[in-house]
Formats: sequence, C-alpha cells, structure tokens
Amino acid sequence: MSIEQAETALFIGGHDPSGGAGLTADIQTATALGVHPLSIVTALTVQDTENVEQIESVDPDWLEACFGRVVSDIHPDSIKVGLWGSQAVGERLATLLEKVRPVPIVLDPIWKASGGFLLAQDGWADVVCSRFLPITTLLTPNWIELQALAPSAPTADEAARALLTLGPGAILVTGGDQDLNRPYVTSTLYASDGTIERWNDARLPAAFHGSGCTLAAACASYLARGYPLKMAVRAGLRWTHLALVKARPIGHGGQIPFRAGVPP
Amino acid sequence: MSIEQAETALFIGGHDPSGGAGLTADIQTATALGVHPLSIVTALTVQDTENVEQIESVDPDWLEACFGRVVSDIHPDSIKVGLWGSQAVGERLATLLEKVRPVPIVLDPIWKASGGFLLAQDGWADVVCSRFLPITTLLTPNWIELQALAPSAPTADEAARALLTLGPGAILVTGGDQDLNRPYVTSTLYASDGTIERWNDARLPAAFHGSGCTLAAACASYLARGYPLKMAVRAGLRWTHLALVKARPIGHGGQIPFRAGVPP
Repeated sequence: MSIEQAETALFIGGHDPSGGAGLTADIQTATALGVHPLSIVTALTVQDTENVEQIESVDPDWLEACFGRVVSDIHPDSIKVGLWGSQAVGERLATLLEKVRPVPIVLDPIWKASGGFLLAQDGWADVVCSRFLPITTLLTPNWIELQALAPSAPTADEAARALLTLGPGAILVTGGDQDLNRPYVTSTLYASDGTIERWNDARLPAAFHGSGCTLAAACASYLARGYPLKMAVRAGLRWTHLALVKARPIGHGGQIPFRAGVPP
Repeated sequence: MSIEQAETALFIGGHDPSGGAGLTADIQTATALGVHPLSIVTALTVQDTENVEQIESVDPDWLEACFGRVVSDIHPDSIKVGLWGSQAVGERLATLLEKVRPVPIVLDPIWKASGGFLLAQDGWADVVCSRFLPITTLLTPNWIELQALAPSAPTADEAARALLTLGPGAILVTGGDQDLNRPYVTSTLYASDGTIERWNDARLPAAFHGSGCTLAAACASYLARGYPLKMAVRAGLRWTHLALVKARPIGHGGQIPFRAGVPP
C-alpha cells in the first residue's frame, strides 16, 4: 500500500444511520486498511443499534447509473456486496458484476438483522445461488445464513460443500451465532481446491452490531491490496477480532466494532 | 478522546459513490479524529470525481423517521448538515434540529458541485437564512456560496457581517475558490463576538473533490470532542490542509483528500 497509488474497493449495500453496520462499516474498515472506499447504496434503512425498523430499496436503473458512472471513473480492485433489498436490484446487480470480472467479489449474504428484522426477500436464496455464487470469490455466511442458503444439508460441512459446487472460490462460515455456550468461536474456510481451515477465537462477552459487515469488508480490503484469497481471509479474521475486542457500547444495542486507525 | 467513551457526531447529507465528498468524507474524517460517525442520507447522487449527474432526495417523513430513531438511541455530541436536496427536506430538517438544541450544529451550505452541477434548489438561500442560521453554531461557505446567501453585499466582509446578524455563532469563509492566481488561500473566521481571524495556507497545485465536506466534518468532529468553537475551527483547518497535502488522484477529476489515520 502506498499513499500515492491507492487501491480501491467498491462496496455495494445498505446504509445504516447508527454507523454500526452497512456502508459505514465498509468505509471505516477499508480506510483503516489503507484502501479507498467507493460505495453504492442499494437500500436505505431506518435502524439503530438494536434492530431495523424500515428498509427502502433503490430502483434498479438508479443502481445501474451509479455503477456505470463509478466504474468508468475508477476501476475497483475488489467489490463487496451486502444487502440489496429487492429481488430486482439483486438481479440487476448480478448482471452488472458479470461484466466487470475478474475483479475479486466478496458476498456477505445478509438475511436477517441481529435484532431479528428480515432483510432478505422471497427468492433471495435463489438469486444468491444461481446468479451470485458462480461469480463470487468469497462468500461469508454465518450459520443462520448458511442454513437459509442450503436448507436441506444436514451439517454445515455438507451445506458449504453443496454451495461450493455452484462456483464460488471459497466459503468462510463464521460461528459467532452458533454454540453460544462454548468459550470460543470457530470460523471455517472451505476453499474450492478442497482444503478446509478452521480458526478458534475466544468468544467475547458482548453482542455486536456490524461484526459480519466488518469481516467481509476487511477480506475485500485485503483482496484489493493484492493478498491471495486465503491470506486475505486470515488477515481479515485477525483484524476483525481486534476490532471486536476494542468495540464500544455506543447505543443501547450491540457494541460497535472499533474500525479506526491510530488518530493523529 | 478515550476508546471506551466515544464522542459521536451526526452527519446529515448526500451520498457520493466516488467516496470523495458527502457522507464518505464525513465518516472518514470523524473516524480519523476519534469520533463515532452517525449518518442520515438526505439525497443519493450519481456522480464521479468530475461532476454530479443526478440527485434524488429522500422523503421528509423518511428523514424524520431516521432522525428520531438515531437520536433516541445515541445522543450526538455535534451535528453537521450538508446537502439536503429538496426544500421539503430542508424545512423538515430545520424543525427537527430546533428540538435537539443546544447540540453544536455545523452547516456546510452546499450550492454547486465543483464540476458545476447545481445542488441547491429555488428557495434554498431563504431556508438557510431564515431556518438554519438562527440555530447554526458554525457556517462554512466558500466565496461562491457566501455570494449566493448574501447577493446584495458588496464585499465578503459585509456579506459575512450581514449573515451574522441572523444568529449563527460564527462564519468560516474559505477562499479556495477565490483569487486563484495568489500563491495562498485565505480562510476568514467571523465570530458573533465581533472578532475576525484570518489564516493563509499555501495554495496547492491540485483541484480537489470533497475538500469543503472534509473541513466542515473536521470542525464538527472537534466540536464533538468538546473543543471551543474557535479552537475547533483552527484544528479543523490544520487537519484539512494536511488531508489536502496528502490527497490522491484516484479518479479522473479532483484529487480525493487523504482522511485515514495511520493504518495498522
């Protein structure tokens, strides 16, 4: 990373006014990791650190206009996709992304807010599986999202293997929402070369608002900097764990990850 | 600033996909200065580093729902307002801000994009003068914006004095868009106590995309940290000048200010 020649990452997702999740998480993470953040809003939300109250998706034509204008001015070194808010936006986005390959694409398959509000719509899993997975470099589901994407698989291992056959480069399954009584959180990386890596991090006592966004954004930022896929995942997990260790109780809900560099 | 007890600033303005101006500038600046950024989108734009192509404002009821939800969860230590996109949103916003006083409010009166696209609408100057200036702590116009707000004043000094009678705590007039042949840029702070301070910074050779947003966000961040008004302005000017010195040519248009802390 040099100051003169900045790597850039394009973040496509929802806006969260509380600054915990969504594009604020993306912008802070990329900036802290030395990558210039481009961003396109797919959906606005009314939410706080506890839950989402309303969501409003943009028009697919608007999305396409934003995408075309940004990408023709600045070539992104990686792209991260989060919430897209409507079936029509999801499908248009897949069509746009198919045209800019081989830029690395991280997909954070957002299904529900931690507070319980359903963010995906009918047909969401189909769009992810049929349109996005063939062009995705890294998919980052938690356990609940993995089950939503592969509901008939009896175990996480089998779910991840089933999704891998659809074409993504790797699947990182995070375990923050599983086995809550264990003192550690297991993250598992299933790569298309057949390898599996697992990491155990100490389970932190707090709940968080924006931890999944932070992890996916960190992986996308390291990919933008040219890290190979597995190294980007390892670095992203480590950086995110530190951001969670330093998280702060800013609102009444989940703590917000600390995503700043060292202030001047 | 401590890591445990974060100050927060609420940024209300437009979203710029290029990451040069608007809420990305705000989020990066606050984060680099140790302040947690809350944000509310008033308008989405299609733009790049050269100019704005389209703008679409949110509904005033949506703005009010966002504002109510964020402010009831997290009390902001300062508020910065930029672009609001429509007369109805501007007026509703003024009504909402009147209720949360005495939080310091920075108003960056955005009139035109640097590429020339008109961002203000008919009646904008009236809303600024009649609704916002009485509740504004710091107004940060450049010369063109100052003229748009006080068109009948023959000089900048007289324009600033006329606007001061409407109630703001201070007006910081930036000179980046004036006297382009001089080797320095003059910034002038007119305070309601009658004092005037001027600073000359070396004029930098590049054009920038997002310099005004960065300055206003830096002043709002220092106000959130408890700096008195004049100290916040001095610190904001100095920080912004450094961000411009380190700016990078990321797109084809203006350079983007460098608003990161030191990356880990």
